[in-house]
Amino acid sequence: MKIRIAEARALVADVMSTYGYDAEQSAIISDHLIDTELRGFSQGGLARAVTLTERLDDSEPFGPITTIQETVSSLAIDGGDQAGYIVARELTERLIDKCETSAAVVGTARNTWCTGMFSYYLEILAAAGLMGFIASSGGPYVAPYGASEARFGTNPVAFGFPTDKDPVIWDIGTSSLMLADLTIAKKHGAELPTGLAFTASGETTTDPSAVLDGGTITTWGGHKGSGLALAAQLLGMMAGSAIAPPWLTDMGFFMFVVDPAALSPDFPARASEFVEIMHATRPVDRDQPVRVPFERSIALREQMRAAGEFEVEDRFVEALRGAASRRPA
Amino acid sequence: MKIRIAEARALVADVMSTYGYDAEQSAIISDHLIDTELRGFSQGGLARAVTLTERLDDSEPFGPITTIQETVSSLAIDGGDQAGYIVARELTERLIDKCETSAAVVGTARNTWCTGMFSYYLEILAAAGLMGFIASSGGPYVAPYGASEARFGTNPVAFGFPTDKDPVIWDIGTSSLMLADLTIAKKHGAELPTGLAFTASGETTTDPSAVLDGGTITTWGGHKGSGLALAAQLLGMMAGSAIAPPWLTDMGFFMFVVDPAALSPDFPARASEFVEIMHATRPVDRDQPVRVPFERSIALREQMRAAGEFEVEDRFVEALRGAASRRPA
Repeated sequence: MKIRIAEARALVADVMSTYGYDAEQSAIISDHLIDTELRGFSQGGLARAVTLTERLDDSEPFGPITTIQETVSSLAIDGGDQAGYIVARELTERLIDKCETSAAVVGTARNTWCTGMFSYYLEILAAAGLMGFIASSGGPYVAPYGASEARFGTNPVAFGFPTDKDPVIWDIGTSSLMLADLTIAKKHGAELPTGLAFTASGETTTDPSAVLDGGTITTWGGHKGSGLALAAQLLGMMAGSAIAPPWLTDMGFFMFVVDPAALSPDFPARASEFVEIMHATRPVDRDQPVRVPFERSIALREQMRAAGEFEVEDRFVEALRGAASRRPA
Repeated sequence: MKIRIAEARALVADVMSTYGYDAEQSAIISDHLIDTELRGFSQGGLARAVTLTERLDDSEPFGPITTIQETVSSLAIDGGDQAGYIVARELTERLIDKCETSAAVVGTARNTWCTGMFSYYLEILAAAGLMGFIASSGGPYVAPYGASEARFGTNPVAFGFPTDKDPVIWDIGTSSLMLADLTIAKKHGAELPTGLAFTASGETTTDPSAVLDGGTITTWGGHKGSGLALAAQLLGMMAGSAIAPPWLTDMGFFMFVVDPAALSPDFPARASEFVEIMHATRPVDRDQPVRVPFERSIALREQMRAAGEFEVEDRFVEALRGAASRRPA
């Protein structure tokens, strides 16, 4: 079905408010999920909101976000098992405040889950004129290079840069497949590409069911990519999260923020200049101009906002309407 | 020929002292190059020392290293066109000092060249109990994904982590080939792998001479890897270096350093635990245990040190002996 953006935003916020999140928190979760939807990553939008309700239905009530350690240039928080959309957003805002007095700051969050798209936080940082780096770890799901057993999460890593215009944001997962790739392939009876997954007993497989049934997937980018996934796992552990946390619990979130003005005051203007140079670079295919990370997201989001609505599977809207009515606000 | 480690170390230091580097600086350059040699990367050892002499023979005398901007948690320096081995080492040491009072610090260097192996600096940081990240940019040599024209340097990126034992250090180049791959292929009349390089006019090629003659190579890892190369380029520009500096000049060097004790005091012990878990992970090939980045370097270095000597092409030793005698000390 088509759903109006405003309606979807209100629906997600409404659902979240039934789980103990106040109006502001519910709006924060909703804003993140709708932004993800508008950027074309529908598996992280209303579909993810349904996952959140399932996770919250299964959980003890969450606790408050607490500060573990804090200095002028560092902040380690415990998310109290709250959804990462809330925890990482709070960390982002507190680090922006710290950048008023420190040109470099580091922040971590543990005991949280579902931190969403890192580009969401990096866009907030860039709007404040700040460069950011984010990485996170999660429960074992991905095999290191040369192994057939899971040790890493899907471990996204991302860099974001302010420019004079739109930010440049690089935001990737370090696994060769996403969880959504597996569930979608299984649903459609499709096979996975060769060489990207193992069964629980360590045989290579292209069967998504075998992977979902205790198997594992490879890291992206061979041994080089595996090293980056390991770095993200260690950065997440620096947040104090468990080495092998259960699924959707105690992810480790690591963020580093720098004020470019302390290093090179004209950086945003020069970054814009470099973006123009990228666009003017001779393409391999004449019809495919060279792109810069995040600009496709911005274009799609503008297009979706102008349309005022987006396409979504009926079952997700129905599940969310059910959740909104099921629990008392 | 075989050369004794002590003799090679003295020879490189001797050569460097003829170019205006004092005894301490010459020893720093020599230590870095010999360490690279002992870790098996011979193209970055005595062979690189020869490149340094060629670069220095062509250069105006270098200036002093100067501070551009400094705060409690940040430091931007100008390398005065000194070799990166000196400049990046000084930046590393000054950032370690800053970590006495700030849990997170950032540092950049511009107007330098040949910063060597980033793992060298990360090992120094790890020995001080610190986590580090380094990236750098350079003159255009590598094409962004979807382009056939160079915009990036070979742009290495690296993360280093302290543990209770040996550090874990991930240190890669973001190009699909190294410059040394081209010169070695050309020397042996070999072809490059398909799909990794373009001629000056933008045709795909496997001929190393065509690439060296104004062509370009691709980034590692497709569009994901290209985004990482772009991030490194922008981080280098944050040092204030030029957008497209000429070959072996004005590279941009970016480093951030974090004291894990401010976030998770037991991190080094837990990182060691994770390394043990990696080693105990079921391998794809029973005879190939899962490896952790940097441990192969450490093992090879120990073996080379025990042997007391290493193999090197005669012509490099001869060139260095010539350079040592050619200019007055």
